[in-house]
Amino acid sequence: MHFPGSHILSVNQFERPDIEHIFATADQMAPYARREKVTRVLEGAILGNMFFEPSTRTRVSFGCAFNLLGGEVRETTGIKSSAIAKGESLYDTARVLSGYSDVIAMRHPQDGSVAEFAAASRVPVINGGDGANEHPSQALLDLYTIKKELATKGRTMDGLRIAMVGDLKFGRTVHSLSKTLGLFNNIHFILVSPKELQMPAEIVEKLRSAGHNVVETEQLESSIAQVDIVYLTRIQEERFPSQEEADRYRGKFRLNQAIYTAYCEPNTVIMHPLPRDSRSNANELDNDLNTNPNLAIFRQADNGVYIRMALFALTLDVVNLVDQYARPVHWFTQKRFETN
Amino acid sequence: MHFPGSHILSVNQFERPDIEHIFATADQMAPYARREKVTRVLEGAILGNMFFEPSTRTRVSFGCAFNLLGGEVRETTGIKSSAIAKGESLYDTARVLSGYSDVIAMRHPQDGSVAEFAAASRVPVINGGDGANEHPSQALLDLYTIKKELATKGRTMDGLRIAMVGDLKFGRTVHSLSKTLGLFNNIHFILVSPKELQMPAEIVEKLRSAGHNVVETEQLESSIAQVDIVYLTRIQEERFPSQEEADRYRGKFRLNQAIYTAYCEPNTVIMHPLPRDSRSNANELDNDLNTNPNLAIFRQADNGVYIRMALFALTLDVVNLVDQYARPVHWFTQKRFETN
Amino acid sequence: MHFPGSHILSVNQFERPDIEHIFATADQMAPYARREKVTRVLEGAILGNMFFEPSTRTRVSFGCAFNLLGGEVRETTGIKSSAIAKGESLYDTARVLSGYSDVIAMRHPQDGSVAEFAAASRVPVINGGDGANEHPSQALLDLYTIKKELATKGRTMDGLRIAMVGDLKFGRTVHSLSKTLGLFNNIHFILVSPKELQMPAEIVEKLRSAGHNVVETEQLESSIAQVDIVYLTRIQEERFPSQEEADRYRGKFRLNQAIYTAYCEPNTVIMHPLPRDSRSNANELDNDLNTNPNLAIFRQADNGVYIRMALFALTLDVVNLVDQYARPVHWFTQKRFETN
Repeated sequence: MHFPGSHILSVNQFERPDIEHIFATADQMAPYARREKVTRVLEGAILGNMFFEPSTRTRVSFGCAFNLLGGEVRETTGIKSSAIAKGESLYDTARVLSGYSDVIAMRHPQDGSVAEFAAASRVPVINGGDGANEHPSQALLDLYTIKKELATKGRTMDGLRIAMVGDLKFGRTVHSLSKTLGLFNNIHFILVSPKELQMPAEIVEKLRSAGHNVVETEQLESSIAQVDIVYLTRIQEERFPSQEEADRYRGKFRLNQAIYTAYCEPNTVIMHPLPRDSRSNANELDNDLNTNPNLAIFRQADNGVYIRMALFALTLDVVNLVDQYARPVHWFTQKRFETN
Repeated sequence: MHFPGSHILSVNQFERPDIEHIFATADQMAPYARREKVTRVLEGAILGNMFFEPSTRTRVSFGCAFNLLGGEVRETTGIKSSAIAKGESLYDTARVLSGYSDVIAMRHPQDGSVAEFAAASRVPVINGGDGANEHPSQALLDLYTIKKELATKGRTMDGLRIAMVGDLKFGRTVHSLSKTLGLFNNIHFILVSPKELQMPAEIVEKLRSAGHNVVETEQLESSIAQVDIVYLTRIQEERFPSQEEADRYRGKFRLNQAIYTAYCEPNTVIMHPLPRDSRSNANELDNDLNTNPNLAIFRQADNGVYIRMALFALTLDVVNLVDQYARPVHWFTQKRFETN
Repeated sequence: MHFPGSHILSVNQFERPDIEHIFATADQMAPYARREKVTRVLEGAILGNMFFEPSTRTRVSFGCAFNLLGGEVRETTGIKSSAIAKGESLYDTARVLSGYSDVIAMRHPQDGSVAEFAAASRVPVINGGDGANEHPSQALLDLYTIKKELATKGRTMDGLRIAMVGDLKFGRTVHSLSKTLGLFNNIHFILVSPKELQMPAEIVEKLRSAGHNVVETEQLESSIAQVDIVYLTRIQEERFPSQEEADRYRGKFRLNQAIYTAYCEPNTVIMHPLPRDSRSNANELDNDLNTNPNLAIFRQADNGVYIRMALFALTLDVVNLVDQYARPVHWFTQKRFETN
């Protein structure tokens, strides 16, 4: 695809070379995100960070990514503070707001809303999540994390073995991640979930017809024994038809250090889209894994900034100018980022 | 008036030369708002964007205008997050907040509050709307839009024919716009509203005594037949004394393409203060007008940025420096703004 | 203490030389805060202004302080908009958010939360208030104000006579201020409160054992007769065990101009942590004092910006660079700050 001026709405837009182009750009952004240097390439540009649904993590990640390129951020943080509540159409909102900024990142609770908004927008729009539908920067940062974690072991994406665990039916992130992984070669998917929360059949079908190996199971321990990546997601109990059903599965899809040690190969990477529920009765991913160097969840969050910087640099067509506007950093920074 | 250091609280502050000075300044701001170039003239300055009432459009418009001049924006977005809830006086709030910034834009639900705040402020304050009272930047952007729309037809403001439609009794924008139009010569006002929602008599009186022609009517179709501008506003049904009354008028003050074609002169300009209610049961201004090139509502919103940039440049006294701090834009911008 | 890279969590971290170092740095920041010049020393740096509890004053003060050093601010303004609501631990929140910025200012309703967050953070954290526990920048700005007010009278901190009035039991600010004042020599404390809301015994004990003079009383008028500073705080009626008890004290701890004139020495300085309840039935500190030149409450608020700039400059280790990145101010500024 041609990035300058394009909307980023769905992972379906990308072919494998597009993804590799985004990742190469993200690599170029890393020294700025890690405060090894500063760039002012977008000084004078404005991001409209339009979050019509509460979000701290993703909203701040987009905003920081734009600041790190030298630009300014104007934002909104909830639908109540919007004219939308007074019956304004997405068309009108888009026509108006796109006159205020150079690019827009948008989250909205309604499926398809961001694409509808983008169609009326006069500037590029990046989808920051539209209901249960798409959240392409999350899929990209997940995939980028997998690529980088494998690279530290001298491996590439092709031939990857991944266990996806938890709610695979409603989980937006696992759907998008599966689709993008499907662009690579010979992926082994082990899909671990309660029967009620299995991956949609059409996604499984598509992966298989593209030549990938897909196994579906309810059994966690055996599934994580021979994989490179365990990608865990939360199961919300209200997804089950009854409390009895929910009770039957409780604790069956949690991962802690003891299970990891007993079943996983050494250096199996643990991922999670976050937020993780750290309350003791939740325990999707135990806190006792926090000192495990293969826990990649915070490297994932860091990668989100690189990916979002890359998307801004690509859609605003400044990739080749970023380094021209570079400066040294002269304030306190410790070697605070984990090697990734 | 002398702008540097002044508060902008009400359209009553302005004489005709002041308005012409603001408009000339807005013209100078246009290339920056349209991203044809960037200026950093206010680099290091801070806007306190104090919205003690929810607003996306106006708040972001003020914030962007300041960013486009190179300044930073600190803001608040609701009264709950404020010490005002703990009984703090506007005097105290103003003394404190005006120590944080170089200029303040403020919206507050209470009539007269912004003027009270400004009296205690140590920096210039721009009224972004105080209850049903004043919203001078809206009146200015409306007037500026009229001027520019007429200019494309080789016309000037004097002799303008305008139909104002809808709730003329409670509508803050039509009151302020009428007052500012009154500063020009020989304006023909056609005021179209339900009897219950007529323009206040003192405004009509003042316009007539200044030599303008004013017609009041309940009939839309005949009223829009010989005007340059149709300025439509929303009628909120709860304004009527009873539901029967509301029902009696439903649909009588809506404008769509069919009515436009049947009754309006060619190139009659359609304006609206926005937000427009686009739900099918509202239809104050139908979506089928969206492709009508005379629909000026989004040009109005764009003009809001120019006007707010002008007000900041004037009150902070940097009009003559703006171009000295100009730079080229080197990121993607399409010719996205409608010719205006 | 060594400031670069350090968290600022509690006044207990400071020895007297640390406080004097912070104050000297704040003095250096004053010309920038007063818009006599601009510095861009932190251009490219990002503050994560994480307010998980509503606050306008403190949040905007931190944000402006960072902008005045040339940096950018990303922020959050309430706990509802946070993943914390979904069971995320402070550890996870800190690991993620500290990847987005160079320094974090944080407020959180829970005692001890900011220290817990800081322990997991990869960047310096400044406590902006954690429940009833600590708010070190407030204590510093109070102390800095006392120092500067005394200096205008040719006095130093040692030998200070101060009356602290109001709720001394639950008031976070008076606890922290007492501790920091205790680092100086020979302070005379007059603690004026209802019996039910007395200063905690351990704080009084510590001050006495450090050689300070402490008097506890319920009587306002006699207490303010021979002091340099009256520091008034609000008494919230809900703090009393019963309404009868609350009624018994109503109006006994208010200060107005008549009482000031009748009892205080000339030039006794009046302070208050703000917000002040200005409703007529509250009257902790009457509005009729607003024209009294010894009312220092707005100078206190201004000093908050200097102190927060100093904390940022110290923890990010740019104190010696601030003046190198200085520029003149070329926009309108009036001599708006009170001489302090």
